[in-house]
Amino acid sequence: MNSFGVKFRFTTFGESHGKAIGCIVDGVPAGLRVDEEFIQKELDRRKPGQSSLTTARKEADRVEILSGVFEGFSTGTPIAMVIFNRDQKSKDYSNIKDIFRPGHADFTYWYKYGIRDYRGGGRSSARETAARVAAGAVAKLLLREFNIEVDAAVVEIGGIGCSTIDFEYAKESVIKCGDKEIEKKLIEEVQSAAKEHDSVGGAVLVRAKNVPIGLGEPVYYKLDSKIAEALMSINGAKAVEIGAGVEAAKMRGSQNNDALTKRGFLSNNSGGILGGISNGDEVIAKVWFKPTPSIFKEQLTLNTKGEEVKFKLKGRHDPCVAIRGAVVAESMVALVLADMLLLNTTSKLEYLKRVYKDE
Amino acid sequence: MNSFGVKFRFTTFGESHGKAIGCIVDGVPAGLRVDEEFIQKELDRRKPGQSSLTTARKEADRVEILSGVFEGFSTGTPIAMVIFNRDQKSKDYSNIKDIFRPGHADFTYWYKYGIRDYRGGGRSSARETAARVAAGAVAKLLLREFNIEVDAAVVEIGGIGCSTIDFEYAKESVIKCGDKEIEKKLIEEVQSAAKEHDSVGGAVLVRAKNVPIGLGEPVYYKLDSKIAEALMSINGAKAVEIGAGVEAAKMRGSQNNDALTKRGFLSNNSGGILGGISNGDEVIAKVWFKPTPSIFKEQLTLNTKGEEVKFKLKGRHDPCVAIRGAVVAESMVALVLADMLLLNTTSKLEYLKRVYKDE
Amino acid sequence: MNSFGVKFRFTTFGESHGKAIGCIVDGVPAGLRVDEEFIQKELDRRKPGQSSLTTARKEADRVEILSGVFEGFSTGTPIAMVIFNRDQKSKDYSNIKDIFRPGHADFTYWYKYGIRDYRGGGRSSARETAARVAAGAVAKLLLREFNIEVDAAVVEIGGIGCSTIDFEYAKESVIKCGDKEIEKKLIEEVQSAAKEHDSVGGAVLVRAKNVPIGLGEPVYYKLDSKIAEALMSINGAKAVEIGAGVEAAKMRGSQNNDALTKRGFLSNNSGGILGGISNGDEVIAKVWFKPTPSIFKEQLTLNTKGEEVKFKLKGRHDPCVAIRGAVVAESMVALVLADMLLLNTTSKLEYLKRVYKDE
Amino acid sequence: MNSFGVKFRFTTFGESHGKAIGCIVDGVPAGLRVDEEFIQKELDRRKPGQSSLTTARKEADRVEILSGVFEGFSTGTPIAMVIFNRDQKSKDYSNIKDIFRPGHADFTYWYKYGIRDYRGGGRSSARETAARVAAGAVAKLLLREFNIEVDAAVVEIGGIGCSTIDFEYAKESVIKCGDKEIEKKLIEEVQSAAKEHDSVGGAVLVRAKNVPIGLGEPVYYKLDSKIAEALMSINGAKAVEIGAGVEAAKMRGSQNNDALTKRGFLSNNSGGILGGISNGDEVIAKVWFKPTPSIFKEQLTLNTKGEEVKFKLKGRHDPCVAIRGAVVAESMVALVLADMLLLNTTSKLEYLKRVYKDE
Repeated sequence: MNSFGVKFRFTTFGESHGKAIGCIVDGVPAGLRVDEEFIQKELDRRKPGQSSLTTARKEADRVEILSGVFEGFSTGTPIAMVIFNRDQKSKDYSNIKDIFRPGHADFTYWYKYGIRDYRGGGRSSARETAARVAAGAVAKLLLREFNIEVDAAVVEIGGIGCSTIDFEYAKESVIKCGDKEIEKKLIEEVQSAAKEHDSVGGAVLVRAKNVPIGLGEPVYYKLDSKIAEALMSINGAKAVEIGAGVEAAKMRGSQNNDALTKRGFLSNNSGGILGGISNGDEVIAKVWFKPTPSIFKEQLTLNTKGEEVKFKLKGRHDPCVAIRGAVVAESMVALVLADMLLLNTTSKLEYLKRVYKDE
Repeated sequence: MNSFGVKFRFTTFGESHGKAIGCIVDGVPAGLRVDEEFIQKELDRRKPGQSSLTTARKEADRVEILSGVFEGFSTGTPIAMVIFNRDQKSKDYSNIKDIFRPGHADFTYWYKYGIRDYRGGGRSSARETAARVAAGAVAKLLLREFNIEVDAAVVEIGGIGCSTIDFEYAKESVIKCGDKEIEKKLIEEVQSAAKEHDSVGGAVLVRAKNVPIGLGEPVYYKLDSKIAEALMSINGAKAVEIGAGVEAAKMRGSQNNDALTKRGFLSNNSGGILGGISNGDEVIAKVWFKPTPSIFKEQLTLNTKGEEVKFKLKGRHDPCVAIRGAVVAESMVALVLADMLLLNTTSKLEYLKRVYKDE
Repeated sequence: MNSFGVKFRFTTFGESHGKAIGCIVDGVPAGLRVDEEFIQKELDRRKPGQSSLTTARKEADRVEILSGVFEGFSTGTPIAMVIFNRDQKSKDYSNIKDIFRPGHADFTYWYKYGIRDYRGGGRSSARETAARVAAGAVAKLLLREFNIEVDAAVVEIGGIGCSTIDFEYAKESVIKCGDKEIEKKLIEEVQSAAKEHDSVGGAVLVRAKNVPIGLGEPVYYKLDSKIAEALMSINGAKAVEIGAGVEAAKMRGSQNNDALTKRGFLSNNSGGILGGISNGDEVIAKVWFKPTPSIFKEQLTLNTKGEEVKFKLKGRHDPCVAIRGAVVAESMVALVLADMLLLNTTSKLEYLKRVYKDE
Repeated sequence: MNSFGVKFRFTTFGESHGKAIGCIVDGVPAGLRVDEEFIQKELDRRKPGQSSLTTARKEADRVEILSGVFEGFSTGTPIAMVIFNRDQKSKDYSNIKDIFRPGHADFTYWYKYGIRDYRGGGRSSARETAARVAAGAVAKLLLREFNIEVDAAVVEIGGIGCSTIDFEYAKESVIKCGDKEIEKKLIEEVQSAAKEHDSVGGAVLVRAKNVPIGLGEPVYYKLDSKIAEALMSINGAKAVEIGAGVEAAKMRGSQNNDALTKRGFLSNNSGGILGGISNGDEVIAKVWFKPTPSIFKEQLTLNTKGEEVKFKLKGRHDPCVAIRGAVVAESMVALVLADMLLLNTTSKLEYLKRVYKDE
């Protein structure tokens, strides 16, 4: 249950304050140039401590490839990657050891497993998403061979939304924001929440370009349903939209249907997906993140003995998970697309004949 | 790729105008009373032609159990169910045979598979969801043994939303609407769209009661991510929210966190799920449906030769898929919960010891 | 758990004396000519009552395709097939209802499920294998597009083995025997066992020709390990060998290693598989069947109350399951190969590039 | 495809001469005491260089747990284990770099993947089995909680078979032999092969005691078919038998059927499995290993340019893989049983009710 994907399949492991986190990426076709530096750069994009707007926790997040790559190329065998945690033993957890932090998974892990790694979030920590980004980087390297690009941008924070989205600008933005005009306001919103010892929610838009027609496997492995699953599996995600999303539900069919012409579709309310299959247009998905549950205001909760306690969290936490979540969302969509790219190779006999033609 | 679930797993088959549709439900524990009449009633709730507000197409939708049930009880072997299609050969499809209907999967199926069952939507037709409802009915029978109830209600049509939700009332409502006050307005909205040869979108809320704490398998089989996947796999779904959903992303952490007390959680913004695991509160999900792509206005599209054509659909179609979609959404959530209920049995050694205790 | 395969995946359902048995074959590439008559012929080869050497039970075994085929071609959607059982209600089961027949699954099904469909073997009946043969016929149609042929022959009965194997002859042989010289002896062996109200074991050799190099997915989806699993899952199978099998274990490495030359391998002790991957030589597997547990001699056993009873079975049963088992073994190997053929399409980037080249 | 199991699921990674090998074990119930020392001891049993009868290659095989264990107990999250390879870069591979070693997977990996990690066997090396033993050790710890013991013994080498099997003795035996009388002969056989620069095959018997009735999930996840798959996936395995195996196929039904009495079964030809489900008797399986393909005699083969070459291997290799293979076989059966133990928890409603009873 810690694996995702069928043909391009990754499995992650690790707790926030254990020895290491990491992943095994299985199903990578042989012959792919695996650029370790690129994987590291992707991790660096997600890494905390990059600005005052994300947690000050220092994570070197140095990735190491243990297998599956030989002389720079994938060999078709599983690619294992590990990131050792630093200083994982040094902290004092006595103030959260017996407390169910509100909005956190402490309570549910405790009941489900009867035991809890109380050092930070353990397995439920957002730290796990570093392993997703490492796997996602391999997915991106594969997608690039087919000219497919996946980008993400923060498009709303604390109810303040962007009016335009420039994915190139988002790459430079300290909050991954896609709208230069509104960026400052969003930064202020994050700072204001932080100042009040509070946190704030936000939304991330993901776009995939040059996706070939035909990706997605109806009816229970549709491109949109797997993107929804992938994005909703990210810590703090509470809603996912495809294309026009909620807005589509407020339209008439005559408005929402994307007319198909020789120049392509005249609109993209569908988000590039029809019947669960990519239609050649840009694949568009939006994910909404709740405000970080870790706030520094006093809160009411229970402890493991079932007693009500007032509780005030200490430490360093992102006031807005959507910012670093943008990199994770991008990775998850890349991972879904890589899987779909591989799955689609057997959709028709003609494809199969191409593979097994005389060499 | 036509299967869903791991332990409570169903596989569907069938095209809208083929011989039959149906499913195999695998993993049903032995000893469950399988009430065939209940399954039929669930199908009747989804059945078209129930009112002027849904398609007039007549589907008897008579379900037949072929296996897995003996003397009224499940035997632990796969339960196959079949619904034979009536009159599937009688229609004339010449007007849609070579046309890619806008907003439909005609285009993507054609490119993906190089062949298309042009008699209606084929596999991509909403008719497939009857098989989901049949499987979902078995899931509900299992959940009932544990007092878990899943209900759904239409909560918005054409941008007009409900202010209260009464799931009991929704059961009687001709449009499955959960708000008696607003119901008439929603009916008018559907009628107005139909009159204009157009269609309209909507939203459905699903609620599960009495879900035990602990359901959901982090980190890639979380309860919320599987519900998102399940709901987004329904024809026409464009967005899924869990709990407060999009609204959560507009709040501060101090507002959104559900305080935990001896009386339970003081609010349910989480939708009953923390860290991907049920927390004992009501599980709440919302799914947004686009307006039916099948409208009777003239539209621009391409034919299979790549020529632009103006096109006007004939026939009978639901002006608002959300209405019958409510039953499907309810079924999908039930199917996810049944799977999670079975999966959770091995989450701790203590559970395992209970199973294998001396009998 | 009633499914087999990853990309070419089939799921079966049905009990020996229920309404119907059947299967859903998922993952068949679109554009494959699906010859219904061929599927029926394959079923006829397995069908009981073909001679005095197999059970006299009459099973029309009329297969009906319910979905996934349009105008004679696969559409990429699941192919459901059903075989309705005849006269399934007419029989009197009172003599076996409360008895655990020795060598049968009655005992284990009872304990595992707490309920048992006592009408014949229920789900554990060899009747289920008809669904495998139907699925296997579709696999064979796919393999034929790549010139791959799978054949099987009975090579030993009651300890009497064949010295040569002629798969063409086996097709005509009433006992699927591959050795004309020894056939009569084997027939006598079966008749002798039947006369004594007893049964007899045997072995079946399966051979696949023209298998391309590269099929099999190390290290837990190897071609040989999946063939072993597939063959061992057949009712009555007790041993599986690949290539030289048990004999290989009695050789020295210098004898057993197949020398590789420009003319190909000089021997085939490996059975066409190295490291779990096909090497281009003939794929060879042997499966050993125990004697049918259904014998008509008096036997000691327990009833469901835990009492010891002497018991004498009545009815019609194959004295040697290996004979009809040959067709099932052939089908299972075909199903494994079809799956492997599809899985291998993403083993290298080069294959992927071929699929997605400009069309 | 580098994963095995459904609920107790492990995934391995690593090449013989890469940085590290290891595994992720997913699905371990929380609350299991994970004895790291025991895992290390199991690895030590498999470790090469223990005597002159196995390869002199030194492998420290020091296992490190990276996740999933907290304060000595499993937490329900994935348990990652890693074994770093030592001196993996030091060797000179020039003599095998361009050669397809006979009987090895060099040839098939080359064709399948178009690239090959030529440093030793790469992924196809028996070194991968260390990861299986690490995972298997965790499986054994779980099984012990239910009093289930799995043991293995070498029962034949070079055609010389044991007449009795003492699993306790096998634990002490330098060649894991279960028959003190014949042990010396087997040792001589191995030494004789080694002296002749050759290798020799053998067989291993695995026995599981105290397996509860009911393990195994018909009809495509049967206990026997998964054991067959598991054992056949081990490097060098060429045949698998369950219970009486090949011998069963030479018997009459009246001989082979195990009579069931109040004292239990009077014989165990079935190997403790009926209809794919454990019957409470000892589970018995035998696996036959071919002689190590790595021999030091001159052999004919091709190089990667397609030229015939005479070739003489250098280095250190086990003359008989069956010896260390015994530990791997034992581990694989333990892994299958652990998975089956978890899967069976939902076989009947009664079990489910026990899990979810009021606590």
